[in-house]
Formats: sequence, structure tokens, C-alpha cells
Amino acid sequence: MREVAIIGIGGTKFGELWDMSLRDLGIQAGLAAVADAKLAAEDIDALYVGNMSAGRFIEQEHVAALIADYSGLARDNIPATRIEAAGASGGLAFREGYLAVASGMHDIVVVGGAEKMTDVGDVLAAEIQSTAADQQWEVVFGATLASLFAMIARRHMYEFGTTREQIAQVAVKNHKHGALNPNAQYQREIDLSTVLNASPVAEPLGVFDCAPLSDGAAAVVLCSMDRARSYTSKPIRIAASAQASDTLALHSRTTVTSFKATQVAAQRAFRQAGRRPEQVQLAEVHDNFTIAEILAIEDLGFFPKGQGGKATMDGETALGGKVAVNTSGGLKARGFPFGATGVAQLVELVEQLRGEAGKRQVPDATLGLAQNAGGTGATVVVSLLEVA
Amino acid sequence: MREVAIIGIGGTKFGELWDMSLRDLGIQAGLAAVADAKLAAEDIDALYVGNMSAGRFIEQEHVAALIADYSGLARDNIPATRIEAAGASGGLAFREGYLAVASGMHDIVVVGGAEKMTDVGDVLAAEIQSTAADQQWEVVFGATLASLFAMIARRHMYEFGTTREQIAQVAVKNHKHGALNPNAQYQREIDLSTVLNASPVAEPLGVFDCAPLSDGAAAVVLCSMDRARSYTSKPIRIAASAQASDTLALHSRTTVTSFKATQVAAQRAFRQAGRRPEQVQLAEVHDNFTIAEILAIEDLGFFPKGQGGKATMDGETALGGKVAVNTSGGLKARGFPFGATGVAQLVELVEQLRGEAGKRQVPDATLGLAQNAGGTGATVVVSLLEVA
Repeated sequence: MREVAIIGIGGTKFGELWDMSLRDLGIQAGLAAVADAKLAAEDIDALYVGNMSAGRFIEQEHVAALIADYSGLARDNIPATRIEAAGASGGLAFREGYLAVASGMHDIVVVGGAEKMTDVGDVLAAEIQSTAADQQWEVVFGATLASLFAMIARRHMYEFGTTREQIAQVAVKNHKHGALNPNAQYQREIDLSTVLNASPVAEPLGVFDCAPLSDGAAAVVLCSMDRARSYTSKPIRIAASAQASDTLALHSRTTVTSFKATQVAAQRAFRQAGRRPEQVQLAEVHDNFTIAEILAIEDLGFFPKGQGGKATMDGETALGGKVAVNTSGGLKARGFPFGATGVAQLVELVEQLRGEAGKRQVPDATLGLAQNAGGTGATVVVSLLEVA
Repeated sequence: MREVAIIGIGGTKFGELWDMSLRDLGIQAGLAAVADAKLAAEDIDALYVGNMSAGRFIEQEHVAALIADYSGLARDNIPATRIEAAGASGGLAFREGYLAVASGMHDIVVVGGAEKMTDVGDVLAAEIQSTAADQQWEVVFGATLASLFAMIARRHMYEFGTTREQIAQVAVKNHKHGALNPNAQYQREIDLSTVLNASPVAEPLGVFDCAPLSDGAAAVVLCSMDRARSYTSKPIRIAASAQASDTLALHSRTTVTSFKATQVAAQRAFRQAGRRPEQVQLAEVHDNFTIAEILAIEDLGFFPKGQGGKATMDGETALGGKVAVNTSGGLKARGFPFGATGVAQLVELVEQLRGEAGKRQVPDATLGLAQNAGGTGATVVVSLLEVA
């Protein structure tokens, strides 16, 4: 397999974008990425699209063909492929696009992620979110994704002495980062008492422990490394992209305070890249709920199991800490359009590795990690990006 | 890229399988394919699943993780990836699985296709089928998939003098083939008057011009060619797998009597394989409506444009004809579980190329083609299989 680089990035703002449809979002992000890579449409060999549930949100399947069509790429009849793995749809689309270039099948591939979620009401949106969990053995009995993560939080508190304040600090930190990101949905800081005193969603988790349901899209352009420098002076190398699965239902696992799929995907990624967790300077992790970030930073090997809450409270995951986690604001503050999130994580890493992240820049960043999860971690993709 | 072989096949019966859920279907097909390849579960490196609309049919997304889980593959945390491209979901999952092995990323990959469609009523099922078309510019104005294909049929009749009887003959021929297939949903012959006098769905198309909406699953096991003979004495080589897109909406095209995506995917596949259409002895094509088979056999280069109806009436596409088309019975008689169809086509080709197709065997078959389409041809995958 040959080396692959990211040569272009783009994205929409995340939020309640009532004047934009799914196709509008996908096209805006894709065209921005293609323009960033200084490509013409005819240079593009294939399109991969991560999307979780357009069938439910807007009654439209076949969305990769839709985006290819409305962006003008169907003119050249390029392959257009949609990937779905709940919240990990974007990261998985990225891995398939990476594979398509690494294999030699295609030279230049655009990977987009998009989701239009605010055309339905909040109750239906939460119901659609729960299609990531096991419908037959979890959801039918009343479990929502929030309640499953609430059980994970309770157990983490019981096993490791993690405190409610430590969990809440994830939201405080990510809002602080989001306030530095002009593309974030929420660009304002919040304090611990706001998180602690918010309306409960599924105790111990409250409103500010849950990432918002958003509209948005993000895109990256991939190119074989040998051609990358003809398009950009700052190609970002894909050092690894690895994927793992786990049981869909939480109750089938031996533990709920670790995501085995995160651990395995991370091991595979670090092995592929020949790197160690200690070398990672910044990471975008899947904080769909605050407790998920604590699990992620432990399972990725940044901190020992059970120490994620303390590390967060001590500032070790904030800008300036040991490893800067979710400098974009994360799903919590940047926003959480399901299928777009995994790709938006990579956009943030590329901005950082190019040194173009403005006020939230991690100094001298050379190695970044993205962890994108579906449901309660039944699918996890871990990718490593580095300065070429 | 290295050579890839199919070393195992499996499938469920297609039909109204009210005692089986999506996960049951997927597991039964997958286990059959794995047993056929004489593999143990721990030999499997990755799983690809083609599924169009489980989110709508059974309110369950994240279905690749679901199948990995319930088949026991999540124990080894293997990558599990769902692909969606409406009716082309299965063929496209196959192409991604092929790419994963050809690239060297994985050695042994299971590709499954599954759809559970009879848990909803007929009206909702037709609505879900129409999510393959452009929701915003076709469906919202009342177009269904059947009505779009009816317009294609009318125009083909107008441009080329294709007759209603020629179109109906596709169904007669495919039912005749289906009667020879013990796994077909409809194993009985019908005559021309039955098709012509059936209740209209969207004129000129009647009930017998439309493939049924079915439950079912199919699976194949892929392996690098250099290891294939350690598992089977009859490996089937994947000579090509190519994909093309077109506009989602029919009205955006310069013609509706050809599917450009079929033509382009076929050109790419024949080029990759170093073969010509005249060399193909049997083909499984996407006859979701009878007229679609006539377009397909023209666009694939088996017959000149406009001659597909005559060729069908003359028996050139029947068993014993110039090219045996849809020996399985096709979508019309074997059944049409959306995401399973593209994989079931490959299962049929492998049975034929192994010489194990019983009463419907094409003598001395060495080269077969599968054409799998989404919606009105906005996504098409063409694959070529040959005896290794």
C-alpha cells in the first residue's frame, strides 16, 4: 500500500442551519475542500460520503449519488459511495477513501461527511440517535443513547471514584476551546456550576453533558503522497487509519467502563504508524457525552484507566496540557452532525498540523489523533495524522 | 493491487420470511458462506454489509456492527462496514470488500447483503423504495420508482419501437429461469398474457413487471488469490469490479433510454479485465422493473441500443441463447431484498462458474457479469467473475 496525504480541507459552520439542505451542506463543504486543494472537478477520481441517517431525517437514501450529482461530479460518472456506522460514519468513510488511494485504485478522492438533523423535532431526533444502539434488545426496552451513557458514567464513578465535577469539567474545557473556534456551534465559555445545575437528561448527565444535534458537513481531499506536493506545500500524511467493532448492545460486554473497540483500534493505529500514545500532542475524540471523552482518553492510552477524570480536572487535556483534547470544541461545543463529525475531527487536526489554528493553535504540533465512535462504541475508527 | 478470489458463497431463501429478523438473515447467509469456504470465524479479517434502508424498515442503523455482533465476529473486534447505495448497496459493498483485499489491507473478507422489508406495509415499503430517487425534485411531486421506470419504458417504446410484449417477455423469461432455482421466491412459470393482463402499477408496467419487495440475505467470502487454493479447489477470480454514478434525478439527463452509469461502469470493468462483452456467457442484471433489463443488456454492450426488446423476444437472453441473462430468476423471480440483491447476483455467478447450478446450468461457463443498480441508475456497479 502506498502513502496517502490530505491536501485539502473544508467545512460548513455547525448549528441549526435552517436555510440549508443536506445537499447544500455537502456541496459547500466539498467545494471548500476542493478549492483548498486547488483542484478542478475533473481531477477527482471518487467520492466517499459518511452519513448516518438521511433515510430517517430527510427521507432520502442514496446520498453519495445525491452529493456527486449536485456538486457536478456525476458529469464524470465518478464512483460515489456512502458509508454508515452511526456516529462513526464520517471516520469510516475517511478510512475507505484512504484505502481507495492507498490501494492504487484511485489517485484523488474526496471524503465528505454530512448530516441534516434539525428538520425533525427533538423527540424524533433522539429516537433516530438511538438507532445506533441495539433496537431489539436495548431501545425497545426504553434505553436511549443518553441513558446508556448515563449508566457508563455511574459505573465509572463507582469503580474509579470519578466525580460528577470531573465529568462536568469535560464540557467546561470543550466550551473553552470552542470559544476559540470561529466554526464552532457554541463559541462561549461555561462554568462548572452551569453544567452541574443544568436540567437532567439521564442522571448523572444533564443538558450540558450532551453534544447538540446539529446540521453540518465537513470534507477532506486525499491524494497519493508522491503527487501531494504538486498541490500543496503542507501535505499532511495519514500515518494510520484503523477500525474495530464491538457488540452493539452494552449489556453483552464484560465491562462498560472501557470501549474495547477504542483500545483495539488505537493499538492497530499506533502499530501501523510506529508511534506511541505519549507522542500524540493533540487529539479529537468522540465526546457525544462528557463521560465518553473520559473513556476515550483512557482507552487511547493517554492516561491510566480510571485517571481520565482527574487528568481532565487537572487541565492535562486542555490547551497547554499534556495532550490537547478537542481543541475544536469537540462534539460538545463545535456541534454534532452525526455523519460529519468524524471528518470534522480530521479537518481540525489538519488545521493544527498546518499551524493554521489561530487562537487555539497547539505549538509545534506534528502528530494528531482522531477517535470517532458509533453508538456506545460498537464501531470505532482511530486515525493518526502527521506533518509530512 | 493483488488478485482476489471468491472462495465461499451463501444465502437465505428470498421471500416473505416473517419468522426471521434482519440479524437472523444476515447471520444465516454469512455462516453459510463461511462454512462453504471451510473457514473458522477467527480467519476473518473484516466484514462489509450492503443494506439500503434498515433505518426506515426496522428503525435500526449501525447494521454492520449488528451483524458482526450477532455472528460472533465482534469478539475479535474486526472492522465491520455498512455500504449504502439504494438497490446497488450489495454490489458496492462487494467492491469495497474487493478493494480491501486487493490493497493488501485484509486477507479474508466476508461481504454480506441483507434487507428485511416485510415488517412494514406495502405503501410504506413503496415510499421507502422511492428514497432511492431524488426526494426534493422527484418524489415530492408524486414520482415513485415504478412511475419513473414507466416513463423510461414509454420513451424506449417511442424511440425504438420496443413493444409491450417484448418488455413483458423479460418477466416470462425470468420466471422460467426462477422455476429452475430452488432458492427463488417465485418458482413457477408465467405466460405473456399473465403479464399483459395484470393490474397496472404505472402504465405500461403492471404487477408482473415489478420485482417483489422481499426479505433475504446473501454473502460471499473473498480471499487473496495466492491463498485461495488452500481453501477451495474452485476459486473464482474477480476479473474486475467497477463503479459509476449519474445524476440522481432522471430529468437531469440527456437521455432516459440509456443508463450512462451502466455504460461507463461496464467500459471500466471490461478494460480492467481485458475482456469484451461478446465473451460474456452469462449475466445477472438489475431487473427491478422489466424495462430495466432491456436497458441493461443494451448498455452492457450485449445488444445494440434499441434491440434489447427484440433480442429478449427472440430468446437470445434465455438459457441456451447468446448470453444467458438472470439465470437465477433475476430480481423479478428470485426476489428483491434491496441490499442483498447485488451480493446474490455474485452467488449465482459463482454457482454457475463452479458448474453447480443444477437444472439452470450454463454449459462450460467461464466468464460471468453482474450489473447492480441503485434507483434509476444513479449508482451502478459492474463486476466480472471468471474461472481461475
